[in-house]
Amino acid sequence: MLRIITQQADVRAELQRICDRIQDEQVLHKEATVREVLQAVKRQGDKAVLQYTTEFDNQTLKPEELRVTGSELDAAYQQVSQELLEAIQLACRKIEAFHRQRMPKSWVHFDDDDVVLGKRYTPVDRAGLYVPGGRAAYPSTVLMNAIPAKVAGVPHVVMVTPPGPLKAIHPSVLVAAQEAGVQEIYRVGGAQAIAALTYGTENIPKVNIITGTGNIYVTLAKKLVYGTVGIDFLAGSGEVLIIADETANPVYVAADMLAQSEQDPMAAAVLLTTDPGLAKNVQVAVERQLIDHPRRTLTEKAIAHYGLIVIVESLQAAAELSNEFAPEHLAVEVQEPWEILPLIRNAGAIFLGHCTPEAVGNYVAGPNHTLPTSGAARYASPLGVETFMKHSSIIQYSQTALEKVANAIDVLASSEDLPSHVNSVQRRIDDDMNY
Amino acid sequence: MLRIITQQADVRAELQRICDRIQDEQVLHKEATVREVLQAVKRQGDKAVLQYTTEFDNQTLKPEELRVTGSELDAAYQQVSQELLEAIQLACRKIEAFHRQRMPKSWVHFDDDDVVLGKRYTPVDRAGLYVPGGRAAYPSTVLMNAIPAKVAGVPHVVMVTPPGPLKAIHPSVLVAAQEAGVQEIYRVGGAQAIAALTYGTENIPKVNIITGTGNIYVTLAKKLVYGTVGIDFLAGSGEVLIIADETANPVYVAADMLAQSEQDPMAAAVLLTTDPGLAKNVQVAVERQLIDHPRRTLTEKAIAHYGLIVIVESLQAAAELSNEFAPEHLAVEVQEPWEILPLIRNAGAIFLGHCTPEAVGNYVAGPNHTLPTSGAARYASPLGVETFMKHSSIIQYSQTALEKVANAIDVLASSEDLPSHVNSVQRRIDDDMNY
Repeated sequence: MLRIITQQADVRAELQRICDRIQDEQVLHKEATVREVLQAVKRQGDKAVLQYTTEFDNQTLKPEELRVTGSELDAAYQQVSQELLEAIQLACRKIEAFHRQRMPKSWVHFDDDDVVLGKRYTPVDRAGLYVPGGRAAYPSTVLMNAIPAKVAGVPHVVMVTPPGPLKAIHPSVLVAAQEAGVQEIYRVGGAQAIAALTYGTENIPKVNIITGTGNIYVTLAKKLVYGTVGIDFLAGSGEVLIIADETANPVYVAADMLAQSEQDPMAAAVLLTTDPGLAKNVQVAVERQLIDHPRRTLTEKAIAHYGLIVIVESLQAAAELSNEFAPEHLAVEVQEPWEILPLIRNAGAIFLGHCTPEAVGNYVAGPNHTLPTSGAARYASPLGVETFMKHSSIIQYSQTALEKVANAIDVLASSEDLPSHVNSVQRRIDDDMNY
Repeated sequence: MLRIITQQADVRAELQRICDRIQDEQVLHKEATVREVLQAVKRQGDKAVLQYTTEFDNQTLKPEELRVTGSELDAAYQQVSQELLEAIQLACRKIEAFHRQRMPKSWVHFDDDDVVLGKRYTPVDRAGLYVPGGRAAYPSTVLMNAIPAKVAGVPHVVMVTPPGPLKAIHPSVLVAAQEAGVQEIYRVGGAQAIAALTYGTENIPKVNIITGTGNIYVTLAKKLVYGTVGIDFLAGSGEVLIIADETANPVYVAADMLAQSEQDPMAAAVLLTTDPGLAKNVQVAVERQLIDHPRRTLTEKAIAHYGLIVIVESLQAAAELSNEFAPEHLAVEVQEPWEILPLIRNAGAIFLGHCTPEAVGNYVAGPNHTLPTSGAARYASPLGVETFMKHSSIIQYSQTALEKVANAIDVLASSEDLPSHVNSVQRRIDDDMNY
């Protein structure tokens, strides 16, 4: 049964418990395993990759089987229904359209004395996308990782995903990859996939940035290799926080909470509402919708541990609690959602109004569904084109301009005890440029 | 003596050695210490912070001495020269002006059927800036961290820096902090400072993001706490790569190389030139400029280990080697630097022409001097306003719009085995909105 508490109770402690549901301490003992995998792949390349694939994924591959072949890619189109292909294509178009908007643009600014300052944006040379697999298939995750990389202009995009039974990758995943423009796919998952993308092996090329979400081993591996390569962020279990008033429909709210909880027994679903009647009705609706839910056991577990309804005094109070929680998904199911929006500071994606279920954002709305979790929305942003780009500062000075700031540089560099800094400026001013 | 090699030699292996001069393996044994510091501060707060400050910084503080007082802040202005104050103020203005340009802006896009999509940019709530200290003083580093945070609109900016002799923080650092708008400063450094900013203590508030560069313990601590808080990036020792043709002045080039090398015995300085005569002349000029260099021992050590001149066949070849190296600072000291710029993909900051020493960028040009090192420019950008901001996606759908995509969501969600996703859409379409 979904619990209801009031703001007077220790709401902050409860929300903190839910936000911190994945603790560093609980995973620390897995780090030794992950370190070993990283070292083995770094030193032995494909040999180690294949050993771990046998050990962890129960699939024994030959080195030449790592890469998905052209004929498998072609065959995948025969194995998905026409309507799934069309749905993938619709999602592709919508996601691409959103990600093409307001892309980072290089600029230069011309200042006095022939000074030029600016920023030059470039895509990373090589990106590696991690897509979870095995028995499950997430074509939408392929699109959400691959399309921003392609829109950013990354010349070399590689995807990795663990092999399922009979070494197969699900055809919906292979079709989604091709629709998003990714042709280079490797049958490898877990920490060994992250290691291969970081260090490169005989068959798998190393990349500059790794994005995408996997299990705890994948997340730990991403944290450990960060610095050698870039990563998007460390994503954990998903969460939704819903702010609702008396105009909200309890059946929709219940469905939205379950849509989060059905994904993972560690997923969190929190409702903050000003209306005790709604709270009660949502509680009942969740019970009803659970009755014949195909994933009832898993979903019930998530709801029991990390589901919560809080009755709050005001929508303002709800917004502040939400900011402290910093949810991955925030749904604002109130009469005037745009009045609440300015109060929101920390959230991955914000779903406004009564007709915007998280599901629309997960598939076809366009914005990315790979979002910061576990409070990371306090400092991180959704996956996007920016994830696959970086910029360089551009500086050009003239002798005249340098002369004007030479004294300030001299004073600052001297205060920091850096004489060659001073010298590098002074020589340029003293000397005749016609050397 | 600065070594000269030709492109025919194994240039790539040499550049790789220099780029990878800080290896994970070398620092791994320090991680245990850092983990212990993090845990102790998390559990014991100020008590642990003060113990480690005694142990590592040789300064024994009382809890109430952690925060720098208003009277110390005031007094600092009496202790710096008028010309240093003015230089700090000039740098402040230039840095702020650059960072105010093209800031991220929130936007919404109105689509058919009352669909609204957009991005909402917000600053982080609380930022923590790490500034190295002890015997050295880096007022410029204060400005480069604090100004982007302030321009981003971060409401709560906290600075930490280790205490020097007699518990003092250098007055130039305190003045720079105030000129940049930071009033809250704590006398704490090392891994214990990173821990305090991550978990909070009785006297030191926790933050959402930690930026700034410190020694290896600070860098390791930042890596370990990443995920609980955000960080800028993992910065190591600095480096400059210079591309020069026959129009370059060997005396300037030598000074630029030494300006990097004088900062740190692990700093790297690489020259790629098409002109063997320039190579020889730079080699001689470096020797000459080292003769009476106040930091000769340290600088010579850096030049000997991580200094290198490579004679290349063409400027295009130089650009490609530079892209592979991905230098923190790239100086393009050639006749037509803007012709080389389009070839550059990976670099933290690019200094164009004969009159743009790195020193101008380190202090007063405006762009940030906190830059990705050790090849991180392959995926990371300079510290900036964006570091202190994040965004949320905004999605609003109408019933009509939802109806049009309902089938696609149904097909995709069913393929991913998520029935409540389907349900959350279907209920909204079937139901009358006048509930």
